[in-house]
Amino acid sequence: MHQLLGKMILPAFDNPHSRQNHDACSFEAQGARLAISTDSYVIRPLFFPGGDIGSLAVHGTVNDLAMSGAAPLYLSVGFILEEGLAMETLWRIVCSMRAAADECGVQLVTGDTKVVDRGKGDGIYVNTTGIGVRKKDREIGPKSVRTDDVVLVSGDVGRHGMAIMAQREGLEFESTIESDSAPLHGIVESLLNEGIDIHCLRDLTRGGLTSALVEVSETAKVHVEIDLASIPVHEEVRGACELLGLDPMQVANEGRMAVWVPEIQATRTLELIRKFPAGEKACQIGQVLNKDTGIVTARSEIGVTRVLDMISGEQLPRIC
Amino acid sequence: MHQLLGKMILPAFDNPHSRQNHDACSFEAQGARLAISTDSYVIRPLFFPGGDIGSLAVHGTVNDLAMSGAAPLYLSVGFILEEGLAMETLWRIVCSMRAAADECGVQLVTGDTKVVDRGKGDGIYVNTTGIGVRKKDREIGPKSVRTDDVVLVSGDVGRHGMAIMAQREGLEFESTIESDSAPLHGIVESLLNEGIDIHCLRDLTRGGLTSALVEVSETAKVHVEIDLASIPVHEEVRGACELLGLDPMQVANEGRMAVWVPEIQATRTLELIRKFPAGEKACQIGQVLNKDTGIVTARSEIGVTRVLDMISGEQLPRIC
Repeated sequence: MHQLLGKMILPAFDNPHSRQNHDACSFEAQGARLAISTDSYVIRPLFFPGGDIGSLAVHGTVNDLAMSGAAPLYLSVGFILEEGLAMETLWRIVCSMRAAADECGVQLVTGDTKVVDRGKGDGIYVNTTGIGVRKKDREIGPKSVRTDDVVLVSGDVGRHGMAIMAQREGLEFESTIESDSAPLHGIVESLLNEGIDIHCLRDLTRGGLTSALVEVSETAKVHVEIDLASIPVHEEVRGACELLGLDPMQVANEGRMAVWVPEIQATRTLELIRKFPAGEKACQIGQVLNKDTGIVTARSEIGVTRVLDMISGEQLPRIC
Repeated sequence: MHQLLGKMILPAFDNPHSRQNHDACSFEAQGARLAISTDSYVIRPLFFPGGDIGSLAVHGTVNDLAMSGAAPLYLSVGFILEEGLAMETLWRIVCSMRAAADECGVQLVTGDTKVVDRGKGDGIYVNTTGIGVRKKDREIGPKSVRTDDVVLVSGDVGRHGMAIMAQREGLEFESTIESDSAPLHGIVESLLNEGIDIHCLRDLTRGGLTSALVEVSETAKVHVEIDLASIPVHEEVRGACELLGLDPMQVANEGRMAVWVPEIQATRTLELIRKFPAGEKACQIGQVLNKDTGIVTARSEIGVTRVLDMISGEQLPRIC
């Protein structure tokens, strides 16, 4: 998908806005500084521990806006329903979206519903497109990353993907792995309000922490080194990953982000993030060493260093 | 779908914005007057005489914005691709979207691509969400419709649906019926610039002219009477409809709209619409008789009057 976007779709849609290469696109209209982001959700199963396709569709787009520093205001919703979908299922999803929107302080302002033939579609697909306002003029994105920035994560990684995978595969653990699906805009707003000079934000969705780090380093042309031992992974998630031969750093999250800030603000930033339930386990995982390389290296506990690469192909299909 | 929206989704998403009951939702952000609209496109076949799913997805959302009087600026694009879709097919659609966006003067600023398993999905589904700016403060919508307004249509009706249907059914006519798929925002902008006091606009998509008239009359609580003989229908379209037992007034269009304006401006409005290729056959089809009834009556050539009703169920599935 990354290749598809890069080689086919982005060049065809080339313009200064699409060239931003970030989760959300910033633009101005009648003097207002706005951001827009769109995402389709095709996840299986529709309901999973810690969320469902509805709450996910709200959190995901709210988070994409937040990653550009925008405060999310409005969402549009597009449903594609397969003929025969139980009305009760749709109702549960609609109610979940409403509750998630209320929790996030955003309004679902316009919608569209299409019905496709039985056998086409897969129960329900949901598209959400979000509009937010950027209160500050600073650009938050890969191009603002500087040498000597530190890289933080807002919590433990790999939960969402493993919650989905465990349910699909019928795996049982001592406790149920719950998705981390959660809105992140409150944390971002708090950091901005407290004067944190955020250089870049990236939510750790498809491709997980590894993809986020590699994408940002490539775009920013910086060398990031991370300390593998510092990356928080819940014990059950680590166990499930080992069982299935997966790397928790490559598993999708839906309520986690990486944050690039000046080293001098690292401690204060972590204090602020940890005040939020979704940020309790925030910690520093690495730093930007120098410019002009565009790679990520990972240092293991025994001191071995390797270059991280994005996974090609799909490790876990249809998890978001 | 109309019932689904009315009974389930709108009440669950209730807020002053979703209550507008119009193609696009108007809102303000940082003092800017904006509009947003979303639509998913699930049409079969993907390519048809006069367009394809890509150009349709651009025109459709541009038109939804135009119907609120907004000038469309930016579109987001969400693709849901079925595994195994030919890259050549995707490329044709992407190029068609780019060309349609250029023609409309809008930018495709952000996108998302999801791939679903083979057999789920149906080749490709496209969601477009559009952002526009409202230059004038007047509200264009059902609530602005007044007694003594006239009702105009911007061209002949029934082409798009019959173009799709003819291709699906393998019907052959002397000439190919081409879809009317076209952007309408240029016409709307011209009317606003020339000082036409547009009260309401509605594009004649799903459910065709009949649904547009009935929906607006119900919301505006007015009695509209139309003159059946005045409604322009292309000869081939009329023939195809007779063959299939369809009413051209209920067949979807993708480049046609109904316009409610004060009677005194009817002639000037028609002159302006007819300057556009998509508006050459514009004409007056009816008028608003009085308030507080919320019905549409149709007077036939021999003077018989009947009440128009929206079709329930789906006359033509997946034509947009």
